[in-house]
Amino acid sequence: MINYPNGKKMVFEQKNAKKKNANDLTVYKNRGIDFENDINSSLEYYDDNGLAIITKRPTPINVVHVDYSRGAKITDAYFEKQSTTDYNGVYRGKYIDFEAKNTKSKTSLPLHNITSHQISHLEKVIKHGGIAFFLISLETLDKVYLLDASFVISFYKAKTRASIPVSEIITKGIEIKQGYMPRFEILKAIDEAYFHEKDI
Amino acid sequence: MINYPNGKKMVFEQKNAKKKNANDLTVYKNRGIDFENDINSSLEYYDDNGLAIITKRPTPINVVHVDYSRGAKITDAYFEKQSTTDYNGVYRGKYIDFEAKNTKSKTSLPLHNITSHQISHLEKVIKHGGIAFFLISLETLDKVYLLDASFVISFYKAKTRASIPVSEIITKGIEIKQGYMPRFEILKAIDEAYFHEKDI
Repeated sequence: MINYPNGKKMVFEQKNAKKKNANDLTVYKNRGIDFENDINSSLEYYDDNGLAIITKRPTPINVVHVDYSRGAKITDAYFEKQSTTDYNGVYRGKYIDFEAKNTKSKTSLPLHNITSHQISHLEKVIKHGGIAFFLISLETLDKVYLLDASFVISFYKAKTRASIPVSEIITKGIEIKQGYMPRFEILKAIDEAYFHEKDI
Repeated sequence: MINYPNGKKMVFEQKNAKKKNANDLTVYKNRGIDFENDINSSLEYYDDNGLAIITKRPTPINVVHVDYSRGAKITDAYFEKQSTTDYNGVYRGKYIDFEAKNTKSKTSLPLHNITSHQISHLEKVIKHGGIAFFLISLETLDKVYLLDASFVISFYKAKTRASIPVSEIITKGIEIKQGYMPRFEILKAIDEAYFHEKDI
């Protein structure tokens, strides 16, 4: 019955609320949250401007007990593993599905925090004609890349390395331009990666 | 800070676990849960057979406190309103988005439990080229219909009635065939409603 969290982002959010900037580790974790917040604000911008509707899936929670005497307060629950990805939606008639990953490593993105369920999910998305990718934040370089899921899937399945080298992400990925509104130019990168000039 | 539940299905599930079949109301509520379970098992069948990947969005929960001394147990949290819809995914290259509604009324589907956020979300889905509909269970008739979201949106916006007459659902909707595997022939109805014969 007890589920330990993979809902790490949420957990970190809670922790950070209490001891923000308390140590370097927390700062790193905050950056992960910043990355997520920046994605969310970018998607909100796209939504507000009628450009795409892509939303974050809520973190699944296993609710064990609800106290109805206190305004339906949940008093016993556990984070569950997300068996799919963080984000999905529709853009230019196409199904969009992606997972966001942040790394503070200067050399590679570790694969250990990508689950086999997520790889399987993204494979199915591609099979059914959807667009699937990873948004990868290379913290120390202050760069964000769109990396097609098929590349990550191949890498994951080859099992020759436990991480994707940064050099590969830069070569195979498309850099996400950063600005103010939207914070991340995600749609421009999707256009470049998945739509031909003539479609635009 | 306190969010009262619209996450009714989840709430009912909890309640039913304790007093199953205790009264007629509970039985009705159980039917709502049965409807949802039947949709979920149908989608699982489609997934397992490589036909489509459509998943249920988790109920959003506002987590106020997590007790890390007890295996990341959530001890204070509240259900939040789903601002989008229950289900989305990809089928035959198209983005699919739908909301499931169950009614025990013999005459009409009340609109009060469809939120303006959901209507707005479905409008955007259509605008961006996705397929958007409602799956409506008419409990007392033991029938399930796919009803295009644009029809529901028009009805909702006209504000001339607080509910959609069953006669309209039957006329404008496509009946979902019911069986064993899958329980609901959702994809067949999508084919009929949104794909031309030549595409199949």
